[in-house]
Amino acid sequence: MAKKKTTKKKTKKKIVVNKSKKTKTRVVDKKRDAETIKKIEKLAGNVVKSSLAQKEPNFSIPTRSVSNMKYNKKKRILEMGDATQTRSLFNLGQSRKFMQSLLLSKGCKELIQAEKTLSLRGMYYMGLHTIPGTKEKTFNDQGESDTILEDLEVALDGLREELHVFAKKRGTMVGNITVVDNGDEINCRKMGTGGYAIPSICEPNIMQFKECTADFILHVEKDTVWSRFNEDRFWETHNCILTEGSGQPPRGVRRMLHRMHKELKLPVYCLLDCDPWGHYIYSVIKQGSINLAFESERMAIPDAKFMGIRSKDYERLDLSDDVKIELNDRDINRAKQIAAYPWFEGKREWQREIKTMLNNGFKMEVESLITKDISYVTEEYVPTRLQEGDFLD
Amino acid sequence: MAKKKTTKKKTKKKIVVNKSKKTKTRVVDKKRDAETIKKIEKLAGNVVKSSLAQKEPNFSIPTRSVSNMKYNKKKRILEMGDATQTRSLFNLGQSRKFMQSLLLSKGCKELIQAEKTLSLRGMYYMGLHTIPGTKEKTFNDQGESDTILEDLEVALDGLREELHVFAKKRGTMVGNITVVDNGDEINCRKMGTGGYAIPSICEPNIMQFKECTADFILHVEKDTVWSRFNEDRFWETHNCILTEGSGQPPRGVRRMLHRMHKELKLPVYCLLDCDPWGHYIYSVIKQGSINLAFESERMAIPDAKFMGIRSKDYERLDLSDDVKIELNDRDINRAKQIAAYPWFEGKREWQREIKTMLNNGFKMEVESLITKDISYVTEEYVPTRLQEGDFLD
Repeated sequence: MAKKKTTKKKTKKKIVVNKSKKTKTRVVDKKRDAETIKKIEKLAGNVVKSSLAQKEPNFSIPTRSVSNMKYNKKKRILEMGDATQTRSLFNLGQSRKFMQSLLLSKGCKELIQAEKTLSLRGMYYMGLHTIPGTKEKTFNDQGESDTILEDLEVALDGLREELHVFAKKRGTMVGNITVVDNGDEINCRKMGTGGYAIPSICEPNIMQFKECTADFILHVEKDTVWSRFNEDRFWETHNCILTEGSGQPPRGVRRMLHRMHKELKLPVYCLLDCDPWGHYIYSVIKQGSINLAFESERMAIPDAKFMGIRSKDYERLDLSDDVKIELNDRDINRAKQIAAYPWFEGKREWQREIKTMLNNGFKMEVESLITKDISYVTEEYVPTRLQEGDFLD
Repeated sequence: MAKKKTTKKKTKKKIVVNKSKKTKTRVVDKKRDAETIKKIEKLAGNVVKSSLAQKEPNFSIPTRSVSNMKYNKKKRILEMGDATQTRSLFNLGQSRKFMQSLLLSKGCKELIQAEKTLSLRGMYYMGLHTIPGTKEKTFNDQGESDTILEDLEVALDGLREELHVFAKKRGTMVGNITVVDNGDEINCRKMGTGGYAIPSICEPNIMQFKECTADFILHVEKDTVWSRFNEDRFWETHNCILTEGSGQPPRGVRRMLHRMHKELKLPVYCLLDCDPWGHYIYSVIKQGSINLAFESERMAIPDAKFMGIRSKDYERLDLSDDVKIELNDRDINRAKQIAAYPWFEGKREWQREIKTMLNNGFKMEVESLITKDISYVTEEYVPTRLQEGDFLD
C-alpha cells in the first residue's frame, strides 16, 4: 500500500501541463485547407440557396458503383465514369444520406478549422447523435458514416486526407532515404530493427522527402518478411527502400509509395505471395481499388512490377512439395475473377501466371522459400529477379 | 514499351550488391546465445545418452495447461506450477511431439549459430518436410509448430526471443526517450506523425535505453487514439512516453513496456475501452497471459494502472446515450469470467467496475469521448485522471 501511495503522490506532483512548451503542432497547409473549406461551403451554399428559393435542396454525387468504374487503358489506372446520383432531402430513399452528408461535411469543416485530424471511427462518433424528438440515430453503425465519407471525397474532389480524416495506420519503412514528417527529420537508414511507422496521412504538408540515395523500392507483403530483409540489411547492400503494408497496404502506405515513385522516380517492385490475395494486392497497388477508384490518380502506380512469388518457381527453384498449399474453391473463383480484370485480361504473361497456378492446384507464400535457406529470399531470390529483370508487369 | 525497357535497363545497371558495404549486422549477445545453445545441446544430449544406453529417449516439459497455472499473490503475477509432462519417443501419443520438439530445437540452434532471427511462420516452414518413405509431414499446420515452440521456451527456460524466434510486429511509440535499436539511436521526440515501430524483439542486446526524461508511460489500446495523443503533443505537454499495441499488445510491446517500467522506474497507465476486451488487455499487461504464464516474470507489470474508460464515466462525464454499445451474451459471459480471475476476485473496485458495466448493459470505447470534443480525451479526460490519481489497480 505504501508503494501505491508513493506512486500516486509522485504522479500528482509531476503532472505539470506545460502548455508554453507546446512549441510544435501539426504542420498545416493553410492554402489547401482553405480550398477544401471552400468546396464544403459551396456544397452547403447550394443547399441553402435552393431552400431560400423554395426549391427542393439536393446535390449530386458521382456514382461509386462497379458499373461506373472504367479502366483507362492509356493511363493504366481504374477511373470513375461520369454517372452521378442525386441526393434530395424530400426523397424518402435519399433524405437520410442527404442529411448524413451535410452532417459529416460540417464535421470535416470543424476538423479543418481546428487544425486537427480524426480517425474514421472518430468521425462516426463525432457525427453520432439522436435526432431530437425521435429515437432515430444519425448513424446506425460506422459502416454508414464510412460510406458517406467516401461519397464526400468524391463529391468534393478531395482526398480523405484533405478532409483531415485518416484510416488505420499500418506498415513500416527503412532504407536509403531521409524524410521530414511534421518537421521531424527521419533518417530511415538509422531506424534499427523496428523501423519507421508509415503515417496514415502522407500528404506533402506533413511529409517531405529530404534526401534519397536509393535506386528502387522493394515492397513486401508482410512485416515478418520485411524483418528478414531488414535484418539482412538488404536495403543497404542493394541500395533501396524497404516497405511493408501488413497485407493489403492501407492508404498511408499506398500514398507514400505513390509519392516516392512519382517524385523520386523510383521503380516499385512487389514481393507478394503466389495466391489470389497476393495478386489482388498487386492489382490495387498498380491500378487502384474499385472502391476508391476516384483516388487512383493519386494512389495507383501503373509501372509497379510483380517480382514474385511466381507459380513457375516451384519447378524453377526445385522447391519441395512442402511449400504447396492447396487452392480451395474460393481461391479458384477469386483467381478466375482476377484473370478477368480488364488490366490483366490483355496480358499474356498474367494469364499464363494465373493459369499455371490453377493447373498447379496450389498456392505458395514468400515464407516458403525458407525451406531452401533462411536467407534464400534476400540473398538469392530477389537479387536474381532484379538481375534478370524478370517481372510481371 | 520503350519506357518498360528503360526501367529494366536502369535496374540492371544499378543493382550492385556491395557486400563490402555491409558494415553493420544484427547486434549479437554471444554470451546469451552460447547459454541458449548449451541448453539445447543438453536437451539433445540426454536423448542421445538414453539411446546409447538402450533406454527409451524422453524428456519432460512443464505442463502449460490452465490447471498448472497459479496466481502468485506476493509477486502479483501469473506463474506456472511444477507439473511436468513426459515426451517419449516410443509412446504413440507422444512420439510426434517428441520428434517435432527435437526438429525445432535443431532449427533454433541453426538460427542462433547463423546469428539470424525468424518469424513463427518461418520456423514452421524451416521444420516442414515429408518424412522419407511416408506421406507424413512433420507439421500439419503452423499451429502445431507454434505450440511446440512455446513448449521449448518453457523446457529450455528461455524467452522465445532468446531462441531467435519472433511474432508479428505491431505497435508504435513516441515520447521523451531516446532508445538505441541495433546500434541506431532513435530519438522518440522526433518521430513525426508516424512514430517508431516497436520491434518484435526488444531484448537488451538489441535494445538499450539511452536517455529518458519522461515521468510515466501512457499506453493506449488503438493506433487511432494514439494518433490523437501524438497530434496533440500530449507526450510533450505531459512529459511522458506514448505507446499503443493495436489491440492486445504483441510480445514486443509487452516486453518494451516491462523493461521501461522496471529499468527506468516509469509508472504505466493504460487507457483502454470499457469492455471485457479492454479489461482483458489490462489483465495481460498487468498479470501476464495464461498461455504464456512462464514469461510473466519478464513480461507482466503488476503495478500497471487502469485509467479508463470507466463504467461510471457515462454518468460522471454526462455522456450522451450515443456512446452506448449494447453488451451481447458473449460480452456478459466474458465479463463474468474476468471478474472471477483470482487477481480481480479480491479487488472490490474491480468487482464494482465490472458490476456497473453489467448493470449499465453497455460498453464504451475511448473514441466515444469524441462526442464531447475532438480533444476531450487528451485535454480533459487523461489530465484529470492523472491529477486525481483515480485509477483501478
